[in-house]
Amino acid sequence: MFSKIKRILIGRPLRSNELHSQKLNNLKALATLSSDALSSVAYGPEQILIVLATVGALAFWYSLPIAVGVLILLVALILSYRQIIYAYPQGGGSYMVAKENLEMNIGLVAGGSLLIDYILTVAVSVSAGTDAITSAFPVVHPHKVGIAVCIVVVITILNLRGLTESASILAYPVYLFVFALAMLIVVGLYQVLTGAAPAHVHASIGTPVVGISLFLLLKAFSSGCSALTGVEAISNAIPNFKEPAPKNAAFTLVIMGLILASLFSGIVFLAYWYGIAPSAKETVLSQLGRAVFGRNGFYYFIQATTALILVLAANTGFSAFPLLAYSLAKDKFMPRAFTVRGDRLGYSNGIVTLGLASIILIIVFQGNTENLIPLYAVGVFIPFTLSQTGMILKWVRSKPKGWIGKLAANLAGALICFLILIIFFITKFQHVWMSLVFIPICVFIFHKIHQHYVAVGDQLRVDLSHKLSEIKTAGNVVIVPVAGITKVVEQSLVYAKSLSDNVVAVYIGSSPEAIDRMEREWAEWQTGVRLVTLHSLYRSVLTPLSEFIDMVKAKADKKGARVTVVMPQFITKKWWHGILHNQSGFLIMAYLLRMRDVIVTIVPYQLQK
Amino acid sequence: MFSKIKRILIGRPLRSNELHSQKLNNLKALATLSSDALSSVAYGPEQILIVLATVGALAFWYSLPIAVGVLILLVALILSYRQIIYAYPQGGGSYMVAKENLEMNIGLVAGGSLLIDYILTVAVSVSAGTDAITSAFPVVHPHKVGIAVCIVVVITILNLRGLTESASILAYPVYLFVFALAMLIVVGLYQVLTGAAPAHVHASIGTPVVGISLFLLLKAFSSGCSALTGVEAISNAIPNFKEPAPKNAAFTLVIMGLILASLFSGIVFLAYWYGIAPSAKETVLSQLGRAVFGRNGFYYFIQATTALILVLAANTGFSAFPLLAYSLAKDKFMPRAFTVRGDRLGYSNGIVTLGLASIILIIVFQGNTENLIPLYAVGVFIPFTLSQTGMILKWVRSKPKGWIGKLAANLAGALICFLILIIFFITKFQHVWMSLVFIPICVFIFHKIHQHYVAVGDQLRVDLSHKLSEIKTAGNVVIVPVAGITKVVEQSLVYAKSLSDNVVAVYIGSSPEAIDRMEREWAEWQTGVRLVTLHSLYRSVLTPLSEFIDMVKAKADKKGARVTVVMPQFITKKWWHGILHNQSGFLIMAYLLRMRDVIVTIVPYQLQK
Repeated sequence: MFSKIKRILIGRPLRSNELHSQKLNNLKALATLSSDALSSVAYGPEQILIVLATVGALAFWYSLPIAVGVLILLVALILSYRQIIYAYPQGGGSYMVAKENLEMNIGLVAGGSLLIDYILTVAVSVSAGTDAITSAFPVVHPHKVGIAVCIVVVITILNLRGLTESASILAYPVYLFVFALAMLIVVGLYQVLTGAAPAHVHASIGTPVVGISLFLLLKAFSSGCSALTGVEAISNAIPNFKEPAPKNAAFTLVIMGLILASLFSGIVFLAYWYGIAPSAKETVLSQLGRAVFGRNGFYYFIQATTALILVLAANTGFSAFPLLAYSLAKDKFMPRAFTVRGDRLGYSNGIVTLGLASIILIIVFQGNTENLIPLYAVGVFIPFTLSQTGMILKWVRSKPKGWIGKLAANLAGALICFLILIIFFITKFQHVWMSLVFIPICVFIFHKIHQHYVAVGDQLRVDLSHKLSEIKTAGNVVIVPVAGITKVVEQSLVYAKSLSDNVVAVYIGSSPEAIDRMEREWAEWQTGVRLVTLHSLYRSVLTPLSEFIDMVKAKADKKGARVTVVMPQFITKKWWHGILHNQSGFLIMAYLLRMRDVIVTIVPYQLQK
Repeated sequence: MFSKIKRILIGRPLRSNELHSQKLNNLKALATLSSDALSSVAYGPEQILIVLATVGALAFWYSLPIAVGVLILLVALILSYRQIIYAYPQGGGSYMVAKENLEMNIGLVAGGSLLIDYILTVAVSVSAGTDAITSAFPVVHPHKVGIAVCIVVVITILNLRGLTESASILAYPVYLFVFALAMLIVVGLYQVLTGAAPAHVHASIGTPVVGISLFLLLKAFSSGCSALTGVEAISNAIPNFKEPAPKNAAFTLVIMGLILASLFSGIVFLAYWYGIAPSAKETVLSQLGRAVFGRNGFYYFIQATTALILVLAANTGFSAFPLLAYSLAKDKFMPRAFTVRGDRLGYSNGIVTLGLASIILIIVFQGNTENLIPLYAVGVFIPFTLSQTGMILKWVRSKPKGWIGKLAANLAGALICFLILIIFFITKFQHVWMSLVFIPICVFIFHKIHQHYVAVGDQLRVDLSHKLSEIKTAGNVVIVPVAGITKVVEQSLVYAKSLSDNVVAVYIGSSPEAIDRMEREWAEWQTGVRLVTLHSLYRSVLTPLSEFIDMVKAKADKKGARVTVVMPQFITKKWWHGILHNQSGFLIMAYLLRMRDVIVTIVPYQLQK
């Protein structure tokens, strides 16, 4: 029943050797892994203008030099991550780089902040997309949390179906969005060049502005850098590419950088030229679309694809989170379950964990996740800074051919990222202080998990030189709890007697009469097994049984013998028949295994009807 | 943790021999078992007036002869149930009487309709009480479902704490209610006798009324009979009384009948004398209180105790349902779990089931359970009719001394109850048709459960003359699934070798490399146990393992040997460490026990840190 539903939702299981079929070509990989980065052009330019608007519309020309700054940082990041892809083709991105070149703890900081970040990505982008939907259809507004949760569930299921399927479905909206924005920019520039666009609505470059300050410009710059979130995703997900994976990933990264740079600079420029001011009522992108196209079909097409890509930005998280969790789990910093491939060869535990965590965030914040955006930007720039720093050390240490140039790129990147981080902490401390709490907690948990795995490994290690065949055992005491005289008990007694000559049956009665009757019937039965009867004052079976076992075990331990509890258990034909029977056997078993260190054997008796 | 919370909520476990401490004296029993019946005087008289009001206020004098009819029925019921108590002192009431004297299926109809009825009692009375609370404090009205659910939870917990405790707490409101109504009636009658009450506002007895019909009078009568619901509760719960239980129960029943008769007739008479007409805005009881006392403190006292008793009527269901479920379970028509006494010696499974079922009803109907009232009345009059009919047959068959008189009482009762049932079905079919669906479903389920228990009993029966010591077994094949070379596996292999000379280890690898490595290390280990390696294409362990077990089992079955699967399982020190490990061992065990009919042994390896 459950497995049928699972089949319908996520499809037939795939064989391990079908893994190659789950690899992405560059076109699909670009769509899946860059939706986050590309979607940020929908709000990045606006963030710059919002900061500049605090001193007035005259200051909008500053968006152009700021955009240049963002582009420089983008180039530095793309170059740096290109180098990371080749240096760490197994994926893991910033975590890998920081761990290898700096220190394990710094790697864990990078990994932890990225994990948190991907959860935030999903929650924030799905909430933003849902806002776009509910703005278009206000009637569904009261259900926005429900809608957002449904969207996360759908994306989770698509990802459980496997990478290629989700990529095939999700590629269309991404490319439609790129096409829509490209058309906007091309038509807009054409209008600018032909003079069809208004030339007088914007302050010319270099206009002096009263009240502008370096602090404000830096703040605008750091806000604009939110357009760069998601750039690192490809470096975490290299194993998802077709072979040669590093080459394909690096190529895709560069293409993504080019698209991102073109869209970002085109929109910043057009917004400046058309004199667009940020407004609480309408997004900059919507105003620009209206200015260029008017309210025609193409305008609505831009709006629709923008809403879609905001939702799909979540998918980048679903591509990168499971692989990062895999890397951490392989290093024993996260539960081993994250290393297991599911039926469709994806790391399904990571996918499901991400889906659940983001649903919890959405519900807790009731879909109002705007305040999480700065937190999310910080969560990206911490690993950016750490991985660039790591790469600097790598070049300094290994000094490969042309290392000075490589070092320069990473040094520039590291400095800019670090600067942005500081600006974030100064200008938006009330939003980002949480990362100072959550990231250390994350690292602490990573260490606790690691310690546990190491401790378990030590305890379980076998000395192979020690021959197993030479280990001797000193007998086996078998206890059979019996509830009455039935076929189930008969079968268990026969089995117990085949295990050992030292078998004792134990009956727990709730009244002296019940005990008397049992003793009489037992004598009549001639089992050849000694019966011990215990009187339970509290009707509980567990307490007297475990006290009895303790007693037997204490004696057995002295002789070096093992104690086995043989539990008669009848198995009903239909699972729901279980409701009609006391299924305490399994509970007793779980208790004894955990608390009493005895071996437990279940002898099933299958009912035929 | 869980058990601590449980201790605080329901108290320390009681020994079985403390059962006598959980028996009720008559004062407490009256409070617990009659709250349902007594609470119905709060709405019974009103129900009569509502029907009469359809032809006008002149018809109100008919409430007096109708009340006389209700009183006659009450006397017949009390006499009849008094006889039932002595005849069936083990409790079970209508179910017992119908089963013994008529037929098992008729008994099941009575039992099923009472079970449904007690659930309805709890849902309806708690909803009604909540309505009274939210009328007094309109600010909490939006939370009425939540409040009703909380009330059910509190009553459930009180009942889990045990009968005496809940009775001690719940006795006060019941007696306060009786006291309040008694004062109302005494003061009212005093005013009538002294002429302080208005003498002109009511039509005199015998006034001819246009439009009155026998049908209408019967309808008014049947509505008034809703005041008799709950009369049967004592006969279901005789075992809760102190010894001599039947005598105490019969005495309590009579006292309850007297109180009920006095309150009912007093209120009907005063309502008539004061010329009170039913109104949608104010209950008849509230109008009467105002007419007698004015809006003083005593008026509010009546209102408050009325609200309380409506809530506490639910408690009657909690006293009677578990005992009725016990009777049905003892006869194998309900799950055996209903026969088990909990920590506080109550039949806690029945208590919890009743609480959950009524919470579900409250949530499904969003607390608007008024429409369930007729259903609930029908659910009472079906067992009333059946038990009276049963008693008639009993007297006819056994003909004890004075049987003609007894027969007359039961015959009158049976006829009146049957008449009321017919009136209900004719006048309120749209509300009561559901009982024609649910009761047969109930009886069908009872039979299915019974069949299952009988079938299981047959399958499990042991022939005691067949000596167990003569049953021979032909060896034991032991399979040890191994996931690697660890102490856990080492311990399991040692144990397996002590069980049998025929041990085989099985390793399931997800890649040829993993299998190669395992085979190499195994050879080096020198265990003396043969290793079989299987390649899992789908990364699942279960499918290849159970295929392998099938193969081994087929061979073993031919020789008459048993197959035991020895599962190495390490037990983490803290339960939450389990998250960090694959705990599939238990799942595999459950699967193998249910699907493969092999014996499963778990060899625990306790981690020390």
